[in-house]
Amino acid sequence: MDSKRLTPPALESLQRVRVILCATSHPGNIGAAARAMKTMGLNRLILVNPKIFPDPQADAMASGADDLLANAIVCTSLTEALQGVVLALAMTARRRELATAPLWVRDGALELVGMAAQGEVALVFGNETSGLSNEELAQCGCWAMIPTDPDFSSLNLAAAVQIMCYELRMALLGTPAVPTIPTMVDVGQLATHDEVEGVLSHFEQSAVDSGFLDVASPGRLMLRLRRLFARARLEREEVNILRGFLASFQRKRG
Amino acid sequence: MDSKRLTPPALESLQRVRVILCATSHPGNIGAAARAMKTMGLNRLILVNPKIFPDPQADAMASGADDLLANAIVCTSLTEALQGVVLALAMTARRRELATAPLWVRDGALELVGMAAQGEVALVFGNETSGLSNEELAQCGCWAMIPTDPDFSSLNLAAAVQIMCYELRMALLGTPAVPTIPTMVDVGQLATHDEVEGVLSHFEQSAVDSGFLDVASPGRLMLRLRRLFARARLEREEVNILRGFLASFQRKRG
Repeated sequence: MDSKRLTPPALESLQRVRVILCATSHPGNIGAAARAMKTMGLNRLILVNPKIFPDPQADAMASGADDLLANAIVCTSLTEALQGVVLALAMTARRRELATAPLWVRDGALELVGMAAQGEVALVFGNETSGLSNEELAQCGCWAMIPTDPDFSSLNLAAAVQIMCYELRMALLGTPAVPTIPTMVDVGQLATHDEVEGVLSHFEQSAVDSGFLDVASPGRLMLRLRRLFARARLEREEVNILRGFLASFQRKRG
Repeated sequence: MDSKRLTPPALESLQRVRVILCATSHPGNIGAAARAMKTMGLNRLILVNPKIFPDPQADAMASGADDLLANAIVCTSLTEALQGVVLALAMTARRRELATAPLWVRDGALELVGMAAQGEVALVFGNETSGLSNEELAQCGCWAMIPTDPDFSSLNLAAAVQIMCYELRMALLGTPAVPTIPTMVDVGQLATHDEVEGVLSHFEQSAVDSGFLDVASPGRLMLRLRRLFARARLEREEVNILRGFLASFQRKRG
């Protein structure tokens, strides 16, 4: 793993995603949302009837995503903001009286990404306290929920934007090419079988010399050590370090 | 889908997760991180040398997660904060000179959840600007990165906490029947962080005694050994074996 860059088609899809914030009360949240978007490579911000915008608090919270604020489009209705989209995904914190149950955000992101290959799409967020109105929810083709703790579901607006944009990016990155633990084997030069056997013999001899290992009843000691080294996938340099240690002990004793 | 409640074992695992914030500069970020944690059902916050805490800004940003701040534990070192954990996952924004490549957060969450079934685990976040020091990173068994846009990776601290806690909850909701690396976890009782530190100190002292390690120019020796042990996920019995070895060498010399 060296970078997690999007492919050109995935980048194009990401450019087709509008993030629409409706009736946001606190300008700081607009700035923080812009920053959250930009970290995930999204840059099209639309504000529907923001209470206060532009505002120095928005600028302060954007820290580096000022370009998104400068290019933000301000609309007076969600209808206007949704012009031309093929799919709008509304974020909701509760089930309400939606005709169909909302998706979980991970599935919602996959849905949106699938449509973004074909046209403009939108992610729609409501007011910090009251969320989206029923009329606004009804204008969106699907709904998504973040699986919060049922006892404390009070997500900050920018935090919800962050999670959703992260899921969009993950969906576009697709199944990770890297295995779960890529890392444990690809770094140093791995020790060969006989090098590992060498350090095991060295340990055994040292342990016998020091009286730790009784040749007559060795028990499971060497077996345990062998399992440990096998699991660790010893590297050549590590073998050298361990043998250096052991040799120094033997010299000291000799 | 009507609710997304965690099963009792998953809830128990979540209670074993410590969120450790190191050297946080802005108290507002501590409060926002607490809120982010609580939305995902995490509640154990540990602060290592926070610049300012407690503080009204932290309270204001916690909005409803005040209990996490009230119960937060303040420590003076990461070592202290990691006492008793079987796995610490450090968040990093760049590859640095880590011996092994970091995991992506989704895989890191699976890893952590797998270990949380067996013991205490920790998520470790660094300072807003400088991240974690190399010494702090070295104390953690694995590292994870959030796949941000390579051109703008400036995630807010609380946003990073939010994503990671969300991924933990998602991992627990999807609780895979088998852990990611079954062979590494289902065998013996895992050693705790301080037990591993103990065997490392023992190695170091023995190596100094034997003349293998020059205190004046230690080089990368102990760092290499630390990485090897972190990778191997030492079990308690293995720690005992290694310490037995070392003690026998020292007795023989004495």
